[in-house]
Amino acid sequence: MTYAELNTPLRTIMTPGPVEVDPRVLRVMSTPIVGQFDPAFTSIMNEVMEMLRKVFQTNNEWAFPVDGTSRSGIEALLCSMIEPGDKVLVPIFGRFGHLLTEICERYEADVYTMECEWGEVFDEQEVINEIQKISPKITAIVHGETSTGRIQPLQKIGAACRELDVLFVVDAVASIAGTEIKVDDWFIDGIVAGTQKCLSVPSGMSPITYNERIEKVIAARKKVERGISTAEDRENEIERDHPIIKSNYFDISMLQDYWGPRRLNHHTEATSMLYALREGLRIVLDEGLETRFNRHRIHEQALMAGIESMGLGLFGNPDCKLPTVTCVKIPDGVDAESVRCMLLNEFGIEIASSFGSLKGKIWRIGTMGYSCRKENILFTLGALEAVLIRHGVNVHTGKALQAALDSYTMVGKESIGQ
Amino acid sequence: MTYAELNTPLRTIMTPGPVEVDPRVLRVMSTPIVGQFDPAFTSIMNEVMEMLRKVFQTNNEWAFPVDGTSRSGIEALLCSMIEPGDKVLVPIFGRFGHLLTEICERYEADVYTMECEWGEVFDEQEVINEIQKISPKITAIVHGETSTGRIQPLQKIGAACRELDVLFVVDAVASIAGTEIKVDDWFIDGIVAGTQKCLSVPSGMSPITYNERIEKVIAARKKVERGISTAEDRENEIERDHPIIKSNYFDISMLQDYWGPRRLNHHTEATSMLYALREGLRIVLDEGLETRFNRHRIHEQALMAGIESMGLGLFGNPDCKLPTVTCVKIPDGVDAESVRCMLLNEFGIEIASSFGSLKGKIWRIGTMGYSCRKENILFTLGALEAVLIRHGVNVHTGKALQAALDSYTMVGKESIGQ
Repeated sequence: MTYAELNTPLRTIMTPGPVEVDPRVLRVMSTPIVGQFDPAFTSIMNEVMEMLRKVFQTNNEWAFPVDGTSRSGIEALLCSMIEPGDKVLVPIFGRFGHLLTEICERYEADVYTMECEWGEVFDEQEVINEIQKISPKITAIVHGETSTGRIQPLQKIGAACRELDVLFVVDAVASIAGTEIKVDDWFIDGIVAGTQKCLSVPSGMSPITYNERIEKVIAARKKVERGISTAEDRENEIERDHPIIKSNYFDISMLQDYWGPRRLNHHTEATSMLYALREGLRIVLDEGLETRFNRHRIHEQALMAGIESMGLGLFGNPDCKLPTVTCVKIPDGVDAESVRCMLLNEFGIEIASSFGSLKGKIWRIGTMGYSCRKENILFTLGALEAVLIRHGVNVHTGKALQAALDSYTMVGKESIGQ
Repeated sequence: MTYAELNTPLRTIMTPGPVEVDPRVLRVMSTPIVGQFDPAFTSIMNEVMEMLRKVFQTNNEWAFPVDGTSRSGIEALLCSMIEPGDKVLVPIFGRFGHLLTEICERYEADVYTMECEWGEVFDEQEVINEIQKISPKITAIVHGETSTGRIQPLQKIGAACRELDVLFVVDAVASIAGTEIKVDDWFIDGIVAGTQKCLSVPSGMSPITYNERIEKVIAARKKVERGISTAEDRENEIERDHPIIKSNYFDISMLQDYWGPRRLNHHTEATSMLYALREGLRIVLDEGLETRFNRHRIHEQALMAGIESMGLGLFGNPDCKLPTVTCVKIPDGVDAESVRCMLLNEFGIEIASSFGSLKGKIWRIGTMGYSCRKENILFTLGALEAVLIRHGVNVHTGKALQAALDSYTMVGKESIGQ
């Protein structure tokens, strides 16, 4: 049996990820590869580290991708830090807070959680109070929660953590390169990003950065793999009085030896994905962080104006809305999945449903990276209106696109391409 | 500061991985992506599962890639099987046997090892005797050991494991799609492959397959993630009397729910890498497994003939030579790294050094996947001769290429393209 060549449809992807990949990123992925220890490749590794520092707005020495999808970076960072019995505080305001909890529990942390209603975020002081009460080793929190479309302010929590000698770990998978994150200014000790959202690179890598406070914790658990360790390595390990990191793949002490000057073989770096990440970062830095964040905001505003003018409601507290995800209340009596299917099948547009208690209650529309451009916003609004009419919903016809166009005019940015 | 566009040299990659990527694979990587739950994508996921079954020569239901480099698949399989205190037997005949040991120990297995000299493999009966003595839950072994260039016969060990109710796990990262592996006929319960070697796909995915014997072990530890679990899921988990799997990312019970009909969100599948894997598998199946294995053998023979005619020695027991890796003894007094550097810098050819006790003693030359073709073999032999002469080595000049050409003529395969 012979298989046909790959033949995929071209979609307008308006989910909160994976989103459309920048064509320049797609192009570099077809570059012939070089070997992992070829100086031509290790210099690309070093360059990616440098570019990541800029995007994370940090002076940390360590900034590199973990070779896996977004949650691989989260697990790598947490499992390299957590020793059994360590207290971890996880404030939860959506699905991905639960994921943090889940990972910490598996690595036998003593996990404390606090929850707020989905659609809200925490008052920073509330979290600080809890940190003071519990005195955790780590506070781990999501920055942009895609499941509810909310963004958590972090700076005061970060400052308090630093003062109280608590390690502050942030999941910025949905916010990196789409909205402001200042790792050093916000006192974030370790942070994890994803590639398939605002970076507009395919899924498969998870960039992380962490400072010397976390490095110290990890160094105490350092291990060099048998089969490549030297006598000196083995001698150093005799003095280790902290347990080694449970995972080999996610052992950051070993990733450091691979990304650092020692270049000790651990895995074989995912060459083409690194090419893609480099190009994605290059595009972000070329556009400029401020310009890029502003662009995301402009398209989000146009989308929201269109949605509301149609007569649909937006979900969640607007004061803490994540600029890269817009949650739309599903009108009563509408078959939410039928609407999504018709959008995909007739218009080639993908929007997202949601998780857990929000399943069937909201649709989620992303405005992320390369997907976040005027023609996509306008096409999605027009299509959604048509599909809702087809589903018998009483929308204000003809208003959505006018409102979106007005929104673009108001910011005087008609010419913004992407 | 602006960064320049990606600009890499074109190399002849003759290491045991990562090797040159098939141009057709590179091309599909620049395909625009679709969403992870788009029917256009889930049908590709199903197709990849089907193709993997054929390449693994198995009827197993479960065959899918883990999103990470090769060792991620090894860790996923082992950590989903191992509960603390489980006995695991690891026969070690090179560096990657040590990796298996290392992973098992981290997950608190009670690890038993047996070692043979690097350059040899085990007599199967010797391993079976040890299995009978120890009665492990799992026997884990490497099939093709890239560090020493040896291949371990597996069928009798597999049959004995099945008879003794031991789970048999194999690391086939360096052998898959380059030399025969019959998962079902050899009684292999779980097996792990890599993409960046004989599949000629970039590094970044690790295809695995396992049968119902392993599925049963994993099902007893099943967990559905908080934030997406149903009331029924949580009820089922109350009855679980085995510990949950330590890693979230590598929890195969969750990967199954993502790759299976339930399509429960776990990670976001690495879209472009899956496109690449599909194309790599398509090419393998189109060439045909037997033809492909034969092609690897033909080029290996030509390479060995050239090396020996030059007057260089081959390392290791020839009876168990891995057809995809040829280990060359470094002549006395030669600066091995200087030779490798000159090959790279003057000829653009990369060959590999080795690990541990073999470091400085052997070079390793791969004949894998797309790199394994006549012009690469001939270019490498010619270049190596020239570089060795330049390093003052007394080689038999002019013999290597003649011997390689003769080798090709002898098998009557002058026209073999790749």
